[in-house]
Amino acid sequence: MKASVFVATSLDGYIARSDGSIDWLNESNSLVPEGEDCGFNDFMETVDALIMGRKTFEQVLTFGDWAYGETPVIVMSHNAVVIPKHLTATVSYSSELPSDLLNRLESLGMNHVYVDGGTTIQSFLEEGLIDDVCITRIPIVIGEGIALFKKTDTDIHLIHLTTTAYDFGFVQTTYKIEKK
Amino acid sequence: MKASVFVATSLDGYIARSDGSIDWLNESNSLVPEGEDCGFNDFMETVDALIMGRKTFEQVLTFGDWAYGETPVIVMSHNAVVIPKHLTATVSYSSELPSDLLNRLESLGMNHVYVDGGTTIQSFLEEGLIDDVCITRIPIVIGEGIALFKKTDTDIHLIHLTTTAYDFGFVQTTYKIEKK
Repeated sequence: MKASVFVATSLDGYIARSDGSIDWLNESNSLVPEGEDCGFNDFMETVDALIMGRKTFEQVLTFGDWAYGETPVIVMSHNAVVIPKHLTATVSYSSELPSDLLNRLESLGMNHVYVDGGTTIQSFLEEGLIDDVCITRIPIVIGEGIALFKKTDTDIHLIHLTTTAYDFGFVQTTYKIEKK
Repeated sequence: MKASVFVATSLDGYIARSDGSIDWLNESNSLVPEGEDCGFNDFMETVDALIMGRKTFEQVLTFGDWAYGETPVIVMSHNAVVIPKHLTATVSYSSELPSDLLNRLESLGMNHVYVDGGTTIQSFLEEGLIDDVCITRIPIVIGEGIALFKKTDTDIHLIHLTTTAYDFGFVQTTYKIEKK
């Protein structure tokens, strides 16, 4: 089972402002040419499921359009999650431990999951369960917010795979995480 | 007068651990081929002076070899700074405000300064005095430390200039700061 992170951050490493808002990201997206998705759809075609935190789920619901098509989405939550009727075919929720969830999805024949959301990414990282991270840096400093990387017990060493600098200023780098 | 930042950070945006140590950076430098300096000497040849904080100065003194040759170095400090005898020809200290210092250096015929050190970079950034930043990202997450970018009053917008991904995993990006 491979677990990947695919995320945009500010230049100072935040995935959202402290209140969860991504106005700065939406604003920066106005720089992006029509039809350019920085590899998101290609990436989505490689994943069998998406695992995200409850807060992230609640936020993507506010976006209106559902960006994940028929891909199964598992929302990590200790409590019940209200899933809108039009999404019940693909969205479920789970309070499993990260490793238990990955084992279960693997037993269902899945090979590649996309892990999203600050808290969820952190919990998978802490368990050493993330294989690679693709970070798209937006050329803006927002000063504070929800950091992609939080305090860790030990340093995390990564191996650089690829970097793409887009004309419109986004810089996307993919790293493989060195397993301990 | 142009003011530039040229700095290495961890993937999570720290220039040093909380205690100022850069063991992680020195360790990562072992990946770098002999003779590769990621553009540092070329950059140094363009600058007329280096402005750094006192803590940074005290740290670079511990490195043994002085990396800045004959380039004038101004150490920002509210108090007197002890300058080793062999450096008194090029190193001085100042408690001037960032803008006053830049004006004075400009009146001496200088056109380009290199601003270094967490606190000093921040104070120049806050005053809108930095023109460009060159960030070399080391592929390691250290979890906490002295951040390159701190809390800001307003978002800082940047314009991407160039990105170089080195074979050994460092990714160097230069941004121009959009003036308000």
